[in-house]
Amino acid sequence: MSMNSFGHLFRVTTWGESHGPALGATVDGCPPGVPVDESMLQHWLDKRRPGQNKNMTQRNEPDAVKILSGVFEGQTTGTSIQLMIENTDQRSKDYGDISETFRPGHADITYWQKYGIRDYRGGGRSSARETAARVAAGGIAREAIKALAPGVAIKGYMTAMGALDIDRSKFDWDAVDQNQFWIPQGPDIAQEWEDYLQTIRKEHNSVGAIVEVVARGVPAGLGAPVYGKLDTDLSAAMMSINAVKGVEIGEGMNAARLMGTDNADEITMGSDGPEYSSNHAGGILGGISTGQDLVVRFAVKPTSSILSPRKSIRKDGTPIEVVTKGRHDPCVGIRAVPVGEAMMACVILDHLLLHRGQVGENRGKIG
Amino acid sequence: MSMNSFGHLFRVTTWGESHGPALGATVDGCPPGVPVDESMLQHWLDKRRPGQNKNMTQRNEPDAVKILSGVFEGQTTGTSIQLMIENTDQRSKDYGDISETFRPGHADITYWQKYGIRDYRGGGRSSARETAARVAAGGIAREAIKALAPGVAIKGYMTAMGALDIDRSKFDWDAVDQNQFWIPQGPDIAQEWEDYLQTIRKEHNSVGAIVEVVARGVPAGLGAPVYGKLDTDLSAAMMSINAVKGVEIGEGMNAARLMGTDNADEITMGSDGPEYSSNHAGGILGGISTGQDLVVRFAVKPTSSILSPRKSIRKDGTPIEVVTKGRHDPCVGIRAVPVGEAMMACVILDHLLLHRGQVGENRGKIG
Amino acid sequence: MSMNSFGHLFRVTTWGESHGPALGATVDGCPPGVPVDESMLQHWLDKRRPGQNKNMTQRNEPDAVKILSGVFEGQTTGTSIQLMIENTDQRSKDYGDISETFRPGHADITYWQKYGIRDYRGGGRSSARETAARVAAGGIAREAIKALAPGVAIKGYMTAMGALDIDRSKFDWDAVDQNQFWIPQGPDIAQEWEDYLQTIRKEHNSVGAIVEVVARGVPAGLGAPVYGKLDTDLSAAMMSINAVKGVEIGEGMNAARLMGTDNADEITMGSDGPEYSSNHAGGILGGISTGQDLVVRFAVKPTSSILSPRKSIRKDGTPIEVVTKGRHDPCVGIRAVPVGEAMMACVILDHLLLHRGQVGENRGKIG
Amino acid sequence: MSMNSFGHLFRVTTWGESHGPALGATVDGCPPGVPVDESMLQHWLDKRRPGQNKNMTQRNEPDAVKILSGVFEGQTTGTSIQLMIENTDQRSKDYGDISETFRPGHADITYWQKYGIRDYRGGGRSSARETAARVAAGGIAREAIKALAPGVAIKGYMTAMGALDIDRSKFDWDAVDQNQFWIPQGPDIAQEWEDYLQTIRKEHNSVGAIVEVVARGVPAGLGAPVYGKLDTDLSAAMMSINAVKGVEIGEGMNAARLMGTDNADEITMGSDGPEYSSNHAGGILGGISTGQDLVVRFAVKPTSSILSPRKSIRKDGTPIEVVTKGRHDPCVGIRAVPVGEAMMACVILDHLLLHRGQVGENRGKIG
Repeated sequence: MSMNSFGHLFRVTTWGESHGPALGATVDGCPPGVPVDESMLQHWLDKRRPGQNKNMTQRNEPDAVKILSGVFEGQTTGTSIQLMIENTDQRSKDYGDISETFRPGHADITYWQKYGIRDYRGGGRSSARETAARVAAGGIAREAIKALAPGVAIKGYMTAMGALDIDRSKFDWDAVDQNQFWIPQGPDIAQEWEDYLQTIRKEHNSVGAIVEVVARGVPAGLGAPVYGKLDTDLSAAMMSINAVKGVEIGEGMNAARLMGTDNADEITMGSDGPEYSSNHAGGILGGISTGQDLVVRFAVKPTSSILSPRKSIRKDGTPIEVVTKGRHDPCVGIRAVPVGEAMMACVILDHLLLHRGQVGENRGKIG
Repeated sequence: MSMNSFGHLFRVTTWGESHGPALGATVDGCPPGVPVDESMLQHWLDKRRPGQNKNMTQRNEPDAVKILSGVFEGQTTGTSIQLMIENTDQRSKDYGDISETFRPGHADITYWQKYGIRDYRGGGRSSARETAARVAAGGIAREAIKALAPGVAIKGYMTAMGALDIDRSKFDWDAVDQNQFWIPQGPDIAQEWEDYLQTIRKEHNSVGAIVEVVARGVPAGLGAPVYGKLDTDLSAAMMSINAVKGVEIGEGMNAARLMGTDNADEITMGSDGPEYSSNHAGGILGGISTGQDLVVRFAVKPTSSILSPRKSIRKDGTPIEVVTKGRHDPCVGIRAVPVGEAMMACVILDHLLLHRGQVGENRGKIG
Repeated sequence: MSMNSFGHLFRVTTWGESHGPALGATVDGCPPGVPVDESMLQHWLDKRRPGQNKNMTQRNEPDAVKILSGVFEGQTTGTSIQLMIENTDQRSKDYGDISETFRPGHADITYWQKYGIRDYRGGGRSSARETAARVAAGGIAREAIKALAPGVAIKGYMTAMGALDIDRSKFDWDAVDQNQFWIPQGPDIAQEWEDYLQTIRKEHNSVGAIVEVVARGVPAGLGAPVYGKLDTDLSAAMMSINAVKGVEIGEGMNAARLMGTDNADEITMGSDGPEYSSNHAGGILGGISTGQDLVVRFAVKPTSSILSPRKSIRKDGTPIEVVTKGRHDPCVGIRAVPVGEAMMACVILDHLLLHRGQVGENRGKIG
Repeated sequence: MSMNSFGHLFRVTTWGESHGPALGATVDGCPPGVPVDESMLQHWLDKRRPGQNKNMTQRNEPDAVKILSGVFEGQTTGTSIQLMIENTDQRSKDYGDISETFRPGHADITYWQKYGIRDYRGGGRSSARETAARVAAGGIAREAIKALAPGVAIKGYMTAMGALDIDRSKFDWDAVDQNQFWIPQGPDIAQEWEDYLQTIRKEHNSVGAIVEVVARGVPAGLGAPVYGKLDTDLSAAMMSINAVKGVEIGEGMNAARLMGTDNADEITMGSDGPEYSSNHAGGILGGISTGQDLVVRFAVKPTSSILSPRKSIRKDGTPIEVVTKGRHDPCVGIRAVPVGEAMMACVILDHLLLHRGQVGENRGKIG
């Protein structure tokens, strides 16, 4: 049991603090023979990297990942892979004044109450910087998935930010990588989102968001009842991301509003197997994948670090007004997109491996 | 690793099918010296028991739990506890006609695709009947919590069913046990809910629901970053319940709509420690409890077993219209309430034990 | 994490006390489609069953196993299997006088010191009766191994008992099932062993033994460095058996006495793959199987329950002379043989499943 | 589940290969507030370090450990600790000629058969160099034990090497650190051991050894039946060390030779609690510590890398005579001593934490 690990067979353990010398992930259980190099992982880290535009924190980290073990001559060896990212832009002085103070909405107070000691610099272990290690591990998972289930495609995007929602009638899968918000919408809408966010930022405020992650081409049969369900593992994976307060599969919370007649995804026989009239289930029935798109959504709360003063207390119990300076994202949901993708990749790989281990070739045929 | 287990130190493994001879739970890691007897557990099982009124399935199961191990002379011994519930009212013939058919919205098709064999009687392992074992295990957890953290109170209730929502201005904690829907509302509102549900039932339909589970009196400091977070474990626990499609902590999905200035739970110093101006966080910051109420919500989809015909296929791929006879709940959300409570109890006990193991007496003091 | 469980993918959790209503095992991770029925498991339980001859305790237990879940129409379904054995011959009165006393060599004192409560009847959870559940689970493992790796044959036998050793020059694999000691020797030697043990028994004494378990036909490549090594898991499995004080792989403790030139198992190329000049390694190199025979040995201490008085104390610290009446084996090593076989079967199945999950088809070819 | 991890609550995951850029350990579950710095860990690493005298490999590694996370201002924070040791003296060319060859007694062949790819340089992941990471983690464990159970003292020493045994009548606990063999004997005997080993080395041979590790002052009550027994975990921990072929607790394999009357450790009441007439049990009854000395022994096979030619095959199946050049220990048992100590420390800390988590203050009193 490890509190810093997730996954069953593909098991990722992360380590490191926001302002320590480095952070990283120990990745265990990756099959051997998967082609991996640092540039493949860097691609995904660059997507999450801070400082790329004014919608992000201006902290300037190259987030260069080094592979220290488990890869030999460009291939995984089946042994534990160590991924390390060194911290370079650590302005600890930005954080010195919070050593005795609890920032509202942050884990400062709970880490102190739990442990009696905390690395307060930039939130220490509770910083979202930890998610860089997840993205690196997710890069490994993506390469391994290519080898095991080549048809899988994973994509994350924002569907809401504060008062804004995407227009699903204009949904454009290919547009996601074309804008700074990872929204599946054209440039006009992206501009509206930017204007909206900059207004919030200038008001010394922040805003929440909803991220949706979809996996296409996932084979039927992944997931293991009743506590290793695919949706159980996905919800834990997403909820473990900093600032996430809700997770939905398929219809999500809205399922509460539906009648049974509406919610049924009716089944017909297609040329390649079962087909469904709809996907309220989000691709999962009884914890096991149906072969439809896996659809997961999660809500990210607004960044707690804002320039507007908020009431709090010091360690000694005296009152203080906290204004969080430093370099912060006005909407952490944006950078949560590649993190959600990475978690999706890790969970899918894990269940591909589990399925191979526990089930083998006797899967039920239909038709 | 076990796919039928959850929990770290307090670990519950369930077994059994809907129409097998029995089902139950192996409960490992309960501290010794906790007073437990069968009647204590039966109290909670009776709350979940089918056949109690016309809002429920008319299957008539006594759900009598037997303790087969781990309890001696009325106290837990610290060794593994076996809880067994025998199935008595197994009308398997109700299910014979589904052996070759996949009911829409059920796990029939995915179990078949995964395993190539399934106990089709009543859904077999995928039946919500499995949750009886969780409720029994939750009863153990409740007694152990009393010994370790006497102030904890756990209560679940419905907050929405289809088009209906509770009126939070009339919230009545004590009314929850006074009506068949476990709603925190007076008898007039309960009557409206009943009329609404009976209409749906008579229309051969079903409806979804939202369940909220609150734990009061949970000490600060429970939860273990970054993948054993209290909210991570709670969301996995709730998502593992049959038919659940979404899980929220505190503000939940609505956090996406808030500004940072609104979402901040401001902190002041009270006579007993820190106090918060609000509880958007649902009692958890950075995965660790703040000492505020823990607030978890989950959405239950409408019962898939309905008398209205729905299109599906047989194993051989031929089309069929499925009308699910048998005895089914028109809103499974009702009986999910005691299950949600049980999962909350298990997770809290688990983290109380973890906290004792890993942290000890050096918790940070405030003030 | 569960203290009553072992295995990674094939995970067995046992429960039950010597004199409770029943004991059993929850078996998780068995692949679907394995033909299993109660009589298959009973075969192995009968081998371990007490009361069969005068070399065993005269407790008379049918040890009839019931399958309560996870098997449907004669095949495993891939879901958790519950195996239950009811206790029938519980003469608790034999044990009433030990409720306040600690028997030397037993866990009475340590359970009390750890838990502050113990089911003293027949040792409660610490009784070797728990191993009946392992044997039942091992029966499942054997059937699954047949499906996955048909060539595997597992056999256990005694190699020493007190002053006696088997004569390896007369080793007879087929004779093992022909005598009461499970020794690979002819009837004359078996008679000598019986005379020796009866003398010890009549002297109100007991004696230790060495058990060797061999698995033939295990494919190369099982085992997972560096803490899930095949030998690591085997040693843990054997050491967890009651009364075991030492475990050896291949050359075992004697490896300390060898020179490197002697210990090398030289490799040549045979028609079916690599062949070895010897098997000092016991079939394992670097934690991974070589394809040679797996050879594990373990030492079982003499039964602590003897009729000869031994000094001890009561709970209140006062001295007492303990004479353990009741019905006890003069050499528990005999009945440890089927237990050792069961543990070997469980570990091999577990690693067959792991290997499938983590490695797949890209195993290295030789020649 | 992770194949590169051990421990329940104190969980160590190692990574790295013999000739990669670095190796290390991710240490999870260390309590907060434990004073730790790099020099404390370096002390133990120096004890294991190669190149210190002619009884060791002449590879010259500083084995300097860096703490990359989990320690802040000299204290552990309760979050995951990353320990990294960079490899500096990597003469990979020594190993180039083994890329196509399987060295007898090494894991070359099994890694190849399992994975189809291996980092052949110095054995890659299968190299005993991995144990440096264990020793570093063990250093953390030692400091945490000081905080939780200050009276514990752990010491390892050799008791046999080839034909030599220590003379237990001259046992000298304090002499262990005074000689190059970590033997509890005076300088004369140490000189005999050196002469013996140098003769073997000059004959291009190697030799096995027995290491005993003792922990004094361990409180009664550690260990968790029935698969998390203290002896089960200790045997797995020791068996996971490279080249170990047997593990004994207390009387060990010799228990097979004893009568029940001899093996009983009789109990009397002393001023500080129960006292025992002997320690055949090695400090463990029923998997739980008695408060006596914990005594574990393990056998290390002779170094497989020797200058004497041995028959083997190449990947293509052709025969070859292997002479292993490079820089190798003539008796790897010597450097296994600090590794055994480290594993003992990790297991004891783990069970101290478990005991706190699962049992609390209701331990049984005696007298």
